[in-house]
Amino acid sequence: MSAFRILHRAAGSDARVGRLSLPHGDVATPAFMPVATHGSVKGLTPRDLRACGAEIVLANAYHLSLRPGADVIARLGGLHRFMGWDGPILTDSGGYQIFSLATLARVREEGVDFRSHLDGSAHFLGPEEAVRIQERLGSDVAMVLDECPPGDATREVVLAAAERSARWAARALAVRSRADQALFGIVQGGTDLALRAESVRATVALGFDGYALGGLSVGEARPTTWEIAAATAPLLPADRPRYFMGTGTPEDLARLVGAGIDLFDCVLPTRHARNGALFTSAGPLVLRHARYADDARPADERCACYTCSHFTRAYLRHLHMAREPLAVTLNTMHNVTYYERLMQEMRAAIEADAYQTFAAGVVAEEGQHPWPA
Amino acid sequence: MSAFRILHRAAGSDARVGRLSLPHGDVATPAFMPVATHGSVKGLTPRDLRACGAEIVLANAYHLSLRPGADVIARLGGLHRFMGWDGPILTDSGGYQIFSLATLARVREEGVDFRSHLDGSAHFLGPEEAVRIQERLGSDVAMVLDECPPGDATREVVLAAAERSARWAARALAVRSRADQALFGIVQGGTDLALRAESVRATVALGFDGYALGGLSVGEARPTTWEIAAATAPLLPADRPRYFMGTGTPEDLARLVGAGIDLFDCVLPTRHARNGALFTSAGPLVLRHARYADDARPADERCACYTCSHFTRAYLRHLHMAREPLAVTLNTMHNVTYYERLMQEMRAAIEADAYQTFAAGVVAEEGQHPWPA
Repeated sequence: MSAFRILHRAAGSDARVGRLSLPHGDVATPAFMPVATHGSVKGLTPRDLRACGAEIVLANAYHLSLRPGADVIARLGGLHRFMGWDGPILTDSGGYQIFSLATLARVREEGVDFRSHLDGSAHFLGPEEAVRIQERLGSDVAMVLDECPPGDATREVVLAAAERSARWAARALAVRSRADQALFGIVQGGTDLALRAESVRATVALGFDGYALGGLSVGEARPTTWEIAAATAPLLPADRPRYFMGTGTPEDLARLVGAGIDLFDCVLPTRHARNGALFTSAGPLVLRHARYADDARPADERCACYTCSHFTRAYLRHLHMAREPLAVTLNTMHNVTYYERLMQEMRAAIEADAYQTFAAGVVAEEGQHPWPA
Repeated sequence: MSAFRILHRAAGSDARVGRLSLPHGDVATPAFMPVATHGSVKGLTPRDLRACGAEIVLANAYHLSLRPGADVIARLGGLHRFMGWDGPILTDSGGYQIFSLATLARVREEGVDFRSHLDGSAHFLGPEEAVRIQERLGSDVAMVLDECPPGDATREVVLAAAERSARWAARALAVRSRADQALFGIVQGGTDLALRAESVRATVALGFDGYALGGLSVGEARPTTWEIAAATAPLLPADRPRYFMGTGTPEDLARLVGAGIDLFDCVLPTRHARNGALFTSAGPLVLRHARYADDARPADERCACYTCSHFTRAYLRHLHMAREPLAVTLNTMHNVTYYERLMQEMRAAIEADAYQTFAAGVVAEEGQHPWPA
C-alpha cells in the first residue's frame, strides 16, 4: 500500500530526505501538500497544480462526505478521477473539522455526533465510518479519526482525548479493508511531553504506515510547537513517514523538517493568495499597498512560476483590487510554487549536508520580514 | 493601422468570411470577442483564453481609466503587456458604461460629466479624451465616444443623441494620433430605420476603419434587433468590418452574421459561466440542478475543451455548489470555447455556401432549448 525509503539523513540534524511510494506515484519528502478541501486547490486546475511542483495534495473527508458525499464520489470512480488529479492524495479523517467547524459536536466512545456546518443536519462519525468514507474516496493515504481537544483544554481532557484517540485508532485498523491505501495514526497529547510520549507509545504499538502529530498549532506559542515536535518525532519509528498536520509558515516548516518531519499541509499559501498576500524571497508582498500600483516587477524576481513569468505586481494588484477571479488563480500559483520550491531547497540542503545553514537562513529571513499576525 | 479583406460571401445571405489584420495579429471574421472588462476575462489566464480559440478580446476603457488608470497602463507598456495578452484587443470607449453604470451622467456638447461607480468621484469624458485614453491603452481597435440614449427614449432624444454622436465622431477623428490603432465609428438611431440610415450616412461620411451598431439590445424585442441590423448593415461600406456591440445568444449571432455583421462581444458566455450555466450542443446546462449530482458525462459530449476533456458534470456541479473559485475558470473555459467554436462553424458554413442551413439549425436549436429569460 505504501513504502517509505529514507535516502539521506542530514549531518547534524534530524532532517531526512526520503521517497514515499504511494499507489498514485512517488512523493519526494520532506513534502508540502497544498490543501484541496473540497477536492480543488482553490483556483488551480490539476495541470496548474502540477506545474507548481506539487506531488501530493490533501483533501478533507469531512467536507467531501457532507458534499457531494463519499458514495457519489465512489460511484464516479473515486476522488482522483472526480477531481482530475492523478497524483497521490492524502485525506484528513474529519476529526479536526468536526471539532472546529461543525456545530454541537458531542463525543462519546462510539464516535462523534455533530451537525453539518452547511445545513445543520445531524451526523455521526466514528473511527469505522471515517475509514469507510476514506476507502470510498480512494485516497492514497487515509487518516484515523482522532479526538481533537481545544488548545486550552485541561490536562485531564487532553489525556482522555489521547486515550480515546488510541482506542479509536485500534478500531480504525481493525476495519480497514483496502490494500491500496496507507493508513496513518495520529499522536495527540497537547503540549504535555509526557502525554505525547504516552500517545506515541500507544499509537505506535498498533502499527501504522505513518504517524501524524495532531493537536498542535492550535493556539500554543510557536516555540512550544517546535519543541513538542522536536521532542516527539524521535520517539516515532525512524522508518515511517512523519506528518505534522496543519502548519505552517516557512520558518515553521524549516524548524519541523529539522526535527525530522516529512509531510506538511497548510492553508497559508492558498489563503494568503486569496487575500492578496504573496510569499516572496524578499518577504511578504501585500498587493493592496499603493506602492505596487505601477510596479513593473514580477511578484518575486527570483521566481519562475507562470505568474512571475508573465505579470507585473501592478497587474496583480489591479486584479486583486478589482476582485477579478484571475487574482485567485495567479496568486495561488505563485504561493504554491513558493512553498514547493522551499521544500525542494530543503531536500537539496539535506542531501548536501547543509541543512542547518539553510534552515537558519529561512528563520533569519522570516525574522526580518515576519507575516502580520 | 488595420486592413480588412473579405475572403468569401455566402450564397443567398449577406454573411461573409473575412480577415481583419490588426497590429497584434489577424482575426478571422465573423469573430466573437470575449469580454475582459478590467483587463482579464474573468477566471482565464491569457493562455487559457488562447486555448479556447479566442483571437481578439474586448476591454473597457471606462473601467480601466478609472482603475488602475490609463496613464498607469501606458507607463507599464500598454494594455497588451499589462494583461499578458499579445493578440488583438478592441477597447470600448466608455460611452455605454457611462450611461449604464456611472451615476449622475450629464451630457453636454463637450462631453459627459459623470461620477465613478467605484467611489463617486467626478469625471469628464469627451470624444477627445476617449481617443486619448484608448491611445494610451494601446488597443488595436478604439471606439469613438457615443451618446447612448436609454432603450425607451423618445424619437427626439434618439435623434439628438445620434446627431451628437456624429459630431463627437468627427472630433474623435480630428484628434487621433496613433497610426497603429484602428478607430471605429458607431451608428446610433435606436429602432427607427430612418434615424439609423441618417446616422449611417453621417458616420460613414467621416470615414472610419470600421463601423459599429450601437444602442441595440437595450430592451427592444429581439426580432426588432435583428430587423434593424439587417436593414442597417447593407448601408455600411461593404469593405469595412461591421461590429454589433454587446450581444448575444447563439441565435442572435447566427442571425446577425446572416445580416452581414463581422464582430461581436457579449458577457453572456462569461457571466453564465459564473452563474453555473453552460452552453452545450443539447441546450443550456444549469449546474445547480440535482440531476447532475452524479452525472459522469462531460458538460458537452461534443466538446473537446479542457473542461470537457477532464471533468464530469458532477464535479462541475460540486465546484459550483461549493463556490469553489475553480468553477469560474472551468465553466468559463467551456462557454468561451463554445462561442468560439460556434464562430468557427459559421465561418466554415459561409465558405461552404451552406450558411442559411447552418443558421437555421442554430435558430431551431435555441427555439427548442431556450435560455431562461
